[in-house]
Amino acid sequence: MYDTLLQLPLFQGLSQADFVGILGKVKLHFTKFEAGKLILPVAGEHDHLTFLLRGEVSVQTAAAGKRYTLTEYLPAPALLEPHTLFGMHPVYDSNYKAHTLVHLVDIDKPTLTNELLGYDIFRLNLLNLISNRAQVYASRLWEEMPDDPQKALLQFVLHRCDHPRGAKLLRIYQSDLSTMLRIPRLTLSAIIHRWQENGWIENRRGSIYFPNIERILL
Amino acid sequence: MYDTLLQLPLFQGLSQADFVGILGKVKLHFTKFEAGKLILPVAGEHDHLTFLLRGEVSVQTAAAGKRYTLTEYLPAPALLEPHTLFGMHPVYDSNYKAHTLVHLVDIDKPTLTNELLGYDIFRLNLLNLISNRAQVYASRLWEEMPDDPQKALLQFVLHRCDHPRGAKLLRIYQSDLSTMLRIPRLTLSAIIHRWQENGWIENRRGSIYFPNIERILL
Repeated sequence: MYDTLLQLPLFQGLSQADFVGILGKVKLHFTKFEAGKLILPVAGEHDHLTFLLRGEVSVQTAAAGKRYTLTEYLPAPALLEPHTLFGMHPVYDSNYKAHTLVHLVDIDKPTLTNELLGYDIFRLNLLNLISNRAQVYASRLWEEMPDDPQKALLQFVLHRCDHPRGAKLLRIYQSDLSTMLRIPRLTLSAIIHRWQENGWIENRRGSIYFPNIERILL
Repeated sequence: MYDTLLQLPLFQGLSQADFVGILGKVKLHFTKFEAGKLILPVAGEHDHLTFLLRGEVSVQTAAAGKRYTLTEYLPAPALLEPHTLFGMHPVYDSNYKAHTLVHLVDIDKPTLTNELLGYDIFRLNLLNLISNRAQVYASRLWEEMPDDPQKALLQFVLHRCDHPRGAKLLRIYQSDLSTMLRIPRLTLSAIIHRWQENGWIENRRGSIYFPNIERILL
């Protein structure tokens, strides 16, 4: 278990001695969840740093106004949403469910701030992680906006993914997708048809499933 | 000067004693720039925490591909781009010029990490600030996408502003704006005409100036 934790960027560079020191001082709280179970409170206060040690979680995010949701699948090892633990509004952005059997470990926020942040390397790692998130999200807002509607559709999905690879499930009505992206219904249908023919998506009623989003080559 | 620094969220909650302790240990580097001067290196490595103590800076950001730029005007006191000091790519997102005579103070990154981050309150303030940035940028990606093209145009501008009030200058060709937002040329012209009639914008060749963006009420 500890080896898995040490693989995470948050612990990178910590000496073995520091890590042993941390384990001596910090209460780690281990949990297990069966597939399908909610692992974190929906829209709940984010007051624990939660690590996914084993298994895979599904991460579902709903757009403001609930016109669509996007689900991604996150394999271990991973740290869940480090950028919403601090700030004015420390609430989870997404819903997290066990997609397989998962093993988690969490550290409460007081322990994090009183103990872990005392380690130079740990706090630089955390600052780097959160800054990276801010930079990634900001850069999306300034990315080129493609003229081509196919590229615009792909960008719409990728801009809402934390990982640009793997399976994604977009729950949305084609009529909403068409209005939101201002792509005419017929153009959008033709794109979806073509992507389905290419095996890039499975078009379902009210949703589009991307088995491997990185396979879409435009 | 010190009173101005203490007004910034980064120093909020620090005791007078801690602040005096910081001033004793930390080398503050004061500078002044005349209006029109570049105050930070363009696309330069971000290796100082820079505070704007007096005056106003213009903050210009270019989209990837350079099809448009947006300029905002930031009054003192302010901290310049805290979210790009750490992370994998510590480079300024924007160009900063003195808009009036400005007074700055900066602290180099080694001093920040070795001295300032030793103070609990200071490092929590910094984590909160950067997390807020990440949360604000993320929330823009999940905001409702308006069907109405007027609202879509306003959202496009506001999503690229760090401050939702005051003057903004958007340098863009209407033809590019039309293609990027997929708003037909005639519709876009009508919107721009109406906004100009309302006194909300000044439409110039190759740019749109918003004297007070918060006055646009749709």
